[in-house]
Order: sequence, then structure tokens, then C-alpha cells
Amino acid sequence: MSVAAIKYDAGVSRWEPNARGRLEQAAMDLYVERGFEQTTVAEIASRAGLTERTFFRYFSDKREVLFWGAASLQEILVNTITDAPGGTSPIAAVAAAIEVAGTLFQEGRERSRARQAVIEANPELKERELIKLAALAAAMAEALRGRGVRDPVASLAAEAGIAVLKISFDEWVAILGDDDLPQRMRAAFSELRAVTAG
Amino acid sequence: MSVAAIKYDAGVSRWEPNARGRLEQAAMDLYVERGFEQTTVAEIASRAGLTERTFFRYFSDKREVLFWGAASLQEILVNTITDAPGGTSPIAAVAAAIEVAGTLFQEGRERSRARQAVIEANPELKERELIKLAALAAAMAEALRGRGVRDPVASLAAEAGIAVLKISFDEWVAILGDDDLPQRMRAAFSELRAVTAG
Repeated sequence: MSVAAIKYDAGVSRWEPNARGRLEQAAMDLYVERGFEQTTVAEIASRAGLTERTFFRYFSDKREVLFWGAASLQEILVNTITDAPGGTSPIAAVAAAIEVAGTLFQEGRERSRARQAVIEANPELKERELIKLAALAAAMAEALRGRGVRDPVASLAAEAGIAVLKISFDEWVAILGDDDLPQRMRAAFSELRAVTAG
Repeated sequence: MSVAAIKYDAGVSRWEPNARGRLEQAAMDLYVERGFEQTTVAEIASRAGLTERTFFRYFSDKREVLFWGAASLQEILVNTITDAPGGTSPIAAVAAAIEVAGTLFQEGRERSRARQAVIEANPELKERELIKLAALAAAMAEALRGRGVRDPVASLAAEAGIAVLKISFDEWVAILGDDDLPQRMRAAFSELRAVTAG
């Protein structure tokens, strides 16, 4: 970004309605059309009708457009586990959390699928996604420990939840019809129960 | 590595007994003493009484010293699953594979623990480890599909196995005594069965 551009933008730092959403949509469109690697922040800003400076007010880089939601997702998972009624088993608390995530992914179906396609096409992004999933598992295990669940139960229940999330989501993304993700997740938890029973 | 060193080494390209093992031991000692980041290939080679050129005959970089075993570990896991007697349930085939891995880690107890300490201390190495574990899960799922197991059962069984591997290994590493890792893994599979049953 040139000094001139910074000065210009500083002069018009007016509020832009839904700048984050517009930047995210523009980025996702470009990532799908051209590929993540080939897209620049300048192009994203231009497509959204905004400046690069505005982009950097919302995202630290073009990768963060894909991952900024992880923090709020983690909060939702942790809160769902923490707020589960007393006496809820660890796996039931985790399943409730994972299904809430499934409902959110389903509501943003188009975005979820575009995002997945972009990530699958790029090894570095796939690595970042794995790291985020591991962080979600660790956060859920910690939330369970906060309910008095001991290890290895807390860790096993959290890892089981992430396995179900990952596998159900991958299947759901691959299906073009109106498949229900939370229901698919419930089925996967049952399936996991049968699988581990041998 | 200087040109002079390359020339010198080219002149003495004699066979070095157990060069890989000596380099690995030297690297692990230095990673534990000084930290992974602070250790150079030159220092590893020098500690092992070998040249940098010899180092690069065995390892592409200093990170590979920690991860070169993943390929043979994957082969062992896949072969154990493939060779399981007909009628073995998916989770039993996976458990057999994970316990073979556990036996190997236990035989190399000192190395296993040093390696884990080095990886835990470095975020980039932790990421690499997650990626290797995901690759192991994918390979085990593929081996199960090769036995006619359908998805999501194949993927769920494989992910369950990796969860048990990771959690059991972390617990085992944290314990100083002579705890039995394969037995701990068997207990974790039972625990996972109880956890998923709710």
C-alpha cells in the first residue's frame, strides 16, 4: 500500500456499512475463482469497493479472512459445554456443543462450502485448519475439566467430538443436496459409539 | 557449509558406522540442551563427529531428524491393520496397530520422551506433529477401507485410534516411572468406549 493511498484513505475514514462482510464475501469469491495464492489483498479490497487500509482494519492478512471465525466458534463450544445441565455426561455435553456448531455451519451453508473448497486446495491452509481443530479440542477438554470431568475422559470426549465434527462436516460438504448437518452429527456420535464397542 | 568443507568431505566419503543414529542422538541432545531453534546443523554434525555433508546425506534439515520416523510408523500401522485376521472389527484392527506403535515408543523410551519435550517447546514443531498425526489417521482409514470397511466407520475408527495414541502418549510421557504404554492404550480404548456410551 502506497503512502499516497494511506493518506487518501486517512482522509476518508468514514464508516463503511458491513465492511467485514463485504471484504469476506469478496475474498471468498476471489479465492474460489482464482485460488487463494493468486489473490492479493489489493484485489479483495477493490472487489469489495473498499481500500486496503480498510481491509487491514478487519483482518491481519488474507489468511485471517478464512480463520477469524475460529475464536467465536471456540467460545460457543466452550459455553455450550459449560452451560450444560448438571448431570449431563461429558460426551452429551460435547455432542450438544458440536451440534450447535453444525447448526451455524448449516446456516452459512454457502460460505461453509466455499471455505472448505479453498482450504482443501491449499496444503498450508489445511495445516492451519488442523491446528485450529486441535485448539478447539483442547478448549473443549478444558471446559469439561471445569465441570469436574477428569482426564483422560475430558480429553477423549473432546477428541471424539472433533472427530465427529470433522468427518460429518467433510461428508456434508461433499453432498450437494439439503442434507441436515446437525442430524448427521448425531448419527456420527451413534456410529462412533457402535465403532468403539467393536 | 563452506566450499572447502565440501571438498574436504568429498575426499573422505568413507562409510561412517551408524551415522544416522549418531546424528540423531547428537541432534536430540542439543535440542534438549539448547533448544531446537538455537541448534545448527554444523553443531549437530560436530557433536556427532561427522561432517555437515554427512548430515545432509541422511536428513534434509534439522527438523527431519524429529520426523523421519513417521514414514515407517505409518507403514507399521497400515500393515498391522491390513494383516489383521478376517472378521477383526475395525476398532480392534486399529487398536492392534496403535499398540504396536506403543510398544515401539516404549522400546525407545528415552528418545520418545526427549523428542516430545523438544516438540512441546516449539509451536512450529507442534504443528508439524499434528499434520503427521492427521496423515496417520488418513492412512489407517484407507487401510480399513482396503479391508472393505465403509465410511464413516473407517474414518471414525482411525480418528479414535489417533485420539487414544495422542492422549495415552501424552500421559505416559508425563509419568516418570516405568508405566506400560501399550497397556495404557488398551485402557484408553476401554475408556473411550465408556465415554462414547455416555
